[in-house]
Amino acid sequence: MNGTLYGVGVGPGDPDLITLKALNILQKVPVIAYPAPEVGESLARKIAARHIPDNRREIIIRIPLDPKRSTDQTAYDQAAVDIDEILRGGDDVAVICEGDPFFYGSFMYLFNRLADQHKVEIIPGVSSLMACAGACLTPLVARNEVLSILPAPMEADQLREQLLKTHAAAIIKLGRHTPKVYDVLAELDLLDCAHYVEHATMDTQRVRKMSEVDPTEVPYFAMILVRKTGVGL
Amino acid sequence: MNGTLYGVGVGPGDPDLITLKALNILQKVPVIAYPAPEVGESLARKIAARHIPDNRREIIIRIPLDPKRSTDQTAYDQAAVDIDEILRGGDDVAVICEGDPFFYGSFMYLFNRLADQHKVEIIPGVSSLMACAGACLTPLVARNEVLSILPAPMEADQLREQLLKTHAAAIIKLGRHTPKVYDVLAELDLLDCAHYVEHATMDTQRVRKMSEVDPTEVPYFAMILVRKTGVGL
Repeated sequence: MNGTLYGVGVGPGDPDLITLKALNILQKVPVIAYPAPEVGESLARKIAARHIPDNRREIIIRIPLDPKRSTDQTAYDQAAVDIDEILRGGDDVAVICEGDPFFYGSFMYLFNRLADQHKVEIIPGVSSLMACAGACLTPLVARNEVLSILPAPMEADQLREQLLKTHAAAIIKLGRHTPKVYDVLAELDLLDCAHYVEHATMDTQRVRKMSEVDPTEVPYFAMILVRKTGVGL
Repeated sequence: MNGTLYGVGVGPGDPDLITLKALNILQKVPVIAYPAPEVGESLARKIAARHIPDNRREIIIRIPLDPKRSTDQTAYDQAAVDIDEILRGGDDVAVICEGDPFFYGSFMYLFNRLADQHKVEIIPGVSSLMACAGACLTPLVARNEVLSILPAPMEADQLREQLLKTHAAAIIKLGRHTPKVYDVLAELDLLDCAHYVEHATMDTQRVRKMSEVDPTEVPYFAMILVRKTGVGL
């Protein structure tokens, strides 16, 4: 009988924000896979480190960082071949993912390659979305408000339009796109109801009012939370 | 020294989807508070039941179900007075919340009444948003797509407009609003890319294609996930 492919969310960064269910999977599977940069540590592996038993086979999926090669999916092609072989051999494989596997997660690249032929089970995780709201002690969204998740790489015009049509927003994937986002927030007079959170729940966590952030020095793992108060659409 | 108020997410329903951090808080606090209907069981209490030690003081916040009294916040006023007194006495209080405390959570009503005078810490939880995507084995959102969270009570016109301007959507708080939602999805030709999930991760979980759902028989704890594929905005 074939093995099961698990997509396991390990949470936003604090190793204690892993679920009991994810822990149980990590204890029982013989093979653990995760993406990592070309050089250096995998964030998902780092978050889950203390929960991974010593004698596990680990598959490291090295992803090119060069933006010109961002559409290069050779690493996922090869990983899918390796994982497929293990599953056909009857062993289970857990792919660990920071946050949640299906919320902007790279797990989707393996899922798309393997879900047709194998049993897949998703273990949802605590997302950075909820972790950031907790870190800045501000409700993300309430009652019948609309919440929009907006990736920062979109055009300024589109970002402006999206922000005008929502009560609350989380702007993600910031990095080098932050100066543009900052300008749009300033133009819409939203800086004062925007919070900035970097590396939520990790030792390096930083929380700021958006008006106090230098937009040229923002990493990728950061988020801006906006909530208009007392305003209809 | 005053106690700390914890807002503790206990996850979407499966008791194993609670985090280690939430478990640790439940082990150490002397007082646990939670909302419940006027008659019957609290969902948050039910999810966390096996993790709550026997000798805890429990504060049950009974919320009126009658829609005409939905703006009646007397129960939260009274609970805030009780909790304030306990915190001033030096004991910690954990308010347990299904899913995550700051994602459409009723914890906000206590937070708004107590955060000015007390230390508050949020333990983020696995949200039903991520649990539903996992349950129907469909990525919620990927790459640079926009995801909109849309409460079903909004007007049909507004829902239509929001759906037109997003790549992916989660429609929540369904219940009696579902026939309206169904009609809007049908009109926009989105029924075939919509999944329906009821009671995600609980024993009573049901997953359906939206086109196969009877919209007149949908409970409140259900969600519709929509993802347009291969379509720009």
